[in-house]
Amino acid sequence: MDPKTYAEAGVDIHKADAFVSRLKHAARRDGHKRLWPAAGGYASVYPIQGNIGVALTTDGVGTKLLVGLEHGKLDTIGIDLVAMCVNDLLCVGATPSTFLDYYATGKLDEKLSDDLMKGIIDGCDRAGMLLVGGETAELPDLYQHGHFDLAGFAMGIVSRESLITGEKLKSGDKLIGVSSSGIHSNGFSLARKLIPLESSLREVLLTPTAIYAAPVVSLLNEHPGAIKGAAHITGGGWTNVTRPNKSLGYVIEQHLTVPDVMKYMGDKVAAEEMYKTFNMGMGLCIMADDANVDVIIRAFKASHFNAMVVGEIAGKKPSLTIKGLGGDKEIVYSNSSK
Amino acid sequence: MDPKTYAEAGVDIHKADAFVSRLKHAARRDGHKRLWPAAGGYASVYPIQGNIGVALTTDGVGTKLLVGLEHGKLDTIGIDLVAMCVNDLLCVGATPSTFLDYYATGKLDEKLSDDLMKGIIDGCDRAGMLLVGGETAELPDLYQHGHFDLAGFAMGIVSRESLITGEKLKSGDKLIGVSSSGIHSNGFSLARKLIPLESSLREVLLTPTAIYAAPVVSLLNEHPGAIKGAAHITGGGWTNVTRPNKSLGYVIEQHLTVPDVMKYMGDKVAAEEMYKTFNMGMGLCIMADDANVDVIIRAFKASHFNAMVVGEIAGKKPSLTIKGLGGDKEIVYSNSSK
Repeated sequence: MDPKTYAEAGVDIHKADAFVSRLKHAARRDGHKRLWPAAGGYASVYPIQGNIGVALTTDGVGTKLLVGLEHGKLDTIGIDLVAMCVNDLLCVGATPSTFLDYYATGKLDEKLSDDLMKGIIDGCDRAGMLLVGGETAELPDLYQHGHFDLAGFAMGIVSRESLITGEKLKSGDKLIGVSSSGIHSNGFSLARKLIPLESSLREVLLTPTAIYAAPVVSLLNEHPGAIKGAAHITGGGWTNVTRPNKSLGYVIEQHLTVPDVMKYMGDKVAAEEMYKTFNMGMGLCIMADDANVDVIIRAFKASHFNAMVVGEIAGKKPSLTIKGLGGDKEIVYSNSSK
Repeated sequence: MDPKTYAEAGVDIHKADAFVSRLKHAARRDGHKRLWPAAGGYASVYPIQGNIGVALTTDGVGTKLLVGLEHGKLDTIGIDLVAMCVNDLLCVGATPSTFLDYYATGKLDEKLSDDLMKGIIDGCDRAGMLLVGGETAELPDLYQHGHFDLAGFAMGIVSRESLITGEKLKSGDKLIGVSSSGIHSNGFSLARKLIPLESSLREVLLTPTAIYAAPVVSLLNEHPGAIKGAAHITGGGWTNVTRPNKSLGYVIEQHLTVPDVMKYMGDKVAAEEMYKTFNMGMGLCIMADDANVDVIIRAFKASHFNAMVVGEIAGKKPSLTIKGLGGDKEIVYSNSSK
């Protein structure tokens, strides 16, 4: 039987959240007061000197690895790894600078290693980052034959003035949706179970995650302050939209094109679950004053991303409301429902 | 039959080195000229502003994880993870500042997660670092039941003046050995095969890796320039000693106490193999002018590490010669033999 939810697919996001909360609590030392508050917790920002800080983040590509292995196509997985980290850095207003990878496997395979490295370097080039280091671990008894894992670590540089804090967001601000390139790197445990191995949609799953560095960095440099909030639509799907400022209400009424692979899964899975698992065509959501909407949309279009106003911030009731689903149907996520 | 070499235990360090070389080659972009040259490649140093840069490194704990799992003792593995990264930062003269972890598992287990986190936080406290982020990934189909992997990413801050470049090392400089706490986190694929599961030495393997941050940071601050070179004795064992400046000859004649667990394995494995796989009692090697030897030894002893002059730099023939093995026996590693 097909799984109907992400939990049924084997991933308990609530338990994972609880662990992450414990981690944050345990790690909260006095020193953490030194960190600069950055919107959405996409990256931690550590002050270096004067008004210059660095943003730090880490991520993996999760089950997308297994789909790559199943199809013998691993030369773009590295792009996903870089993308997952870089798009997080952008959401706090940082300019990506350096990347390191951790690659662990049971037995080093030259072809596979080369393919992974090709993707990581492609991703770094797309993001304008330098790959400055990495660890390659051969762990014969830990990883099953042919299996491996990848983790990435990215650093960006941010000035105190360009830091995105989400504090200035207010009712009436516009939500600008930016197109995803496909499923990106989230929801794969569910997608892998819903889409048969022989389906032509399987290969589409491997389309590399979009990297939004070029347009975002250009906006940060040429239109400082224009981006008031940014949400990378990653694990948790559209519930990410509320992360830049959780005290507000967010309403989405327009939708970018939903990729076919998500339409296919949407026939088997409730919309509430789809929107909190997948990006549904919107890989990034930018929040801005009405006056800056045009310049932002232009910047993304210049980098060949589709972008449009998809909704706005409305009121101070913490929530995300998704309209435009056909008829009167709407989905409301309260901010505790992620 | 017991494996006699690290390769027989399933780890091909030559193949791993070849891959790492390819990686470096592929990643070498013009931008890499911006990096500051730092001794031994233990961390990459990226300039941030003026004379301030950051040192970046990543590492895992490898097969030590499996020994922890076998003994149900995982609450110090996080210390190993932090130690492996932090000791690398120290070798370029950086002061550790921030840490992030990547933790991936098949199914989140609260007790196990808490144990790992406890160790990571203990390690960060010992290193004077802040744990500023991390990724927890639940990958049901990638990791075997009960298995997991951990990677760490560490950043330190370094000024151009305190950067350890190894350039000033010269014949006559002293090698100061600093005691390890045991096997640390290297050579476990071999150790796990040589030491029977029921042996009391198995638990000794889990002694956490020493973190040398306190004495090294104190030396960097109070005696700038005293440390001319530093080698973290990590994967590759004592061949690491030559990393700070590969154009010189290094001769070791004195030995710190060799831990019992290494003596036990030394009965089954040739000394040449032992010294290029394990730390043999010396977790860190500091290189300094004769005049600074006393102050360096005092700093380590104040932090309860044993430290003593173990040898010196002798000549410009790139090599490592290990004496003091009994009789006339000596081991010579040329710099290409790692």
